[in-house]
Amino acid sequence: MTYRKVALIGLGLIASSMYWAMKRAGMETHVSGYARSEKTRETARRLGLCDVVCDSLEEVVKDADLVVLAVPVGAMGGIAETIAPHLKPGATVTDVGSVKRAVIEAVRPHIPEGVHFVPAHPMAGTEHSGPDSGFASLFDNRWCLIVPDGAPDAATAALEDFWHALGANTERMDVQHHDLVCAVVSHIPHLIAYTMVGVADDLRRVSDQEVIKFSAAGFRDFTRIAASDPTMWRDVFLTNKEATLEILGRFTEELFALQRAIRTGDGDTLFDYFTHTREIRRGILQAGQDTEAPDFGRIRKE
Amino acid sequence: MTYRKVALIGLGLIASSMYWAMKRAGMETHVSGYARSEKTRETARRLGLCDVVCDSLEEVVKDADLVVLAVPVGAMGGIAETIAPHLKPGATVTDVGSVKRAVIEAVRPHIPEGVHFVPAHPMAGTEHSGPDSGFASLFDNRWCLIVPDGAPDAATAALEDFWHALGANTERMDVQHHDLVCAVVSHIPHLIAYTMVGVADDLRRVSDQEVIKFSAAGFRDFTRIAASDPTMWRDVFLTNKEATLEILGRFTEELFALQRAIRTGDGDTLFDYFTHTREIRRGILQAGQDTEAPDFGRIRKE
Repeated sequence: MTYRKVALIGLGLIASSMYWAMKRAGMETHVSGYARSEKTRETARRLGLCDVVCDSLEEVVKDADLVVLAVPVGAMGGIAETIAPHLKPGATVTDVGSVKRAVIEAVRPHIPEGVHFVPAHPMAGTEHSGPDSGFASLFDNRWCLIVPDGAPDAATAALEDFWHALGANTERMDVQHHDLVCAVVSHIPHLIAYTMVGVADDLRRVSDQEVIKFSAAGFRDFTRIAASDPTMWRDVFLTNKEATLEILGRFTEELFALQRAIRTGDGDTLFDYFTHTREIRRGILQAGQDTEAPDFGRIRKE
Repeated sequence: MTYRKVALIGLGLIASSMYWAMKRAGMETHVSGYARSEKTRETARRLGLCDVVCDSLEEVVKDADLVVLAVPVGAMGGIAETIAPHLKPGATVTDVGSVKRAVIEAVRPHIPEGVHFVPAHPMAGTEHSGPDSGFASLFDNRWCLIVPDGAPDAATAALEDFWHALGANTERMDVQHHDLVCAVVSHIPHLIAYTMVGVADDLRRVSDQEVIKFSAAGFRDFTRIAASDPTMWRDVFLTNKEATLEILGRFTEELFALQRAIRTGDGDTLFDYFTHTREIRRGILQAGQDTEAPDFGRIRKE
């Protein structure tokens, strides 16, 4: 089954990239879009984002076979409640949130009988946000995790086909495991990056100018992810509290062990630790999830 | 003054990149190279790295106007002691170490009268190491920090000219400030990245395969710097203990504040923190130290 009409709710980086990826794939699907802010809707209309940009939630979901909730996690419940009476029987509702247990708890109670809810999480992004930040290749070769959570197999398979057409690979996962995996590979790395950037900024004896000037020495890799959308990340941490606090506990435990090795001058512990972590990097290169081009494949700006 | 003969001691990423950058600049300097391991010397000869690869420290520094210590920080003192009797009067000794106080303490006592010691730190690198990892453009538009520490201005200025020819910008800094700035922009980011990669690897419920597969969600940015040379980084932490422990203390303090905000559900604190860190990222882009190309400017491998 292909969707004849898709409704995108929230026109930020993910939804706008989905639209361009759908166009690139040559889908003949009709796409309606909605954003809460009038300014975003105007920008979307100017960019030609979506076949039609609607001014209400009721309008955008009308007749849609697939409704995509592409808003911060904290806003999903309210939207689900508003759109519920207007959903077409047999439609599928999905989302693109970075956490799944909280989204399911907020959205599922509002889903009417005869409508399927298939939560999903495309693991792709940049540090940019807004309707003009999207591009067709964002999902290419990236993973979209699908958390069927009891949805019928036909609805799940149709959503998987849709994501494949957008360039992504898919993998099914259960809710708990999704939230733990994401805490490890995404949420805690982001929190740590935010913290490191905050520390650098707060240190009076090292000026901001110095931090910026000399950032290529390692710090730069942190600022990239620490520039991501604040609303999205606030909601991630508020709604994936359990897993993030657990991984954070493991992280500080490990960090304290290395801190102790530094304090006591235990070079062997440091050396062994640093040697071991190299292997993981090699695995990532082999899996095609990064490049080993010089200077990390960045194009230098003069 | 230009150096007629340059001796490179330690033929890893930095020294090999220096050689290729010197060739690219069309310098007519004679370059001799030395590495402790016979295998490295053989690789260097095979690659045509250096005009001559020597089998002893005595031989490599003979008649050299500039001697570059490009070995791990912990090895510099011993090398300085060995080469001291063979240094040409009027020569300059420099290094490329990531810490400066410890290098100065280890090297300066061995420098004979009439020889100048001008410590330096080129802030450039990749996660690769060894004689075959170098490339001519490594230092382009990067910073090389110069810590004159009492060296005559003529010797310092000559070294600065040399680094400019290799593509780098230079800035003079005092020892203490150098070690603090580097702890912030480089040493602690590396330690944190190593820790995060270690945590992910150690977590039994999330497989290594999953961590690797889904790394593009943020974790990837950490593995890159956590793949750097273990010997180099062990020595950095052992020799910049004071500054790294100080910044680490600040980091954990800050991290605990965010952890508390997550635990208590304090969304405003999280949002404000994440908003503020965006500004620093913008500064880095404006300073030309990174690209804002989609997918962080990485060239995707199929």
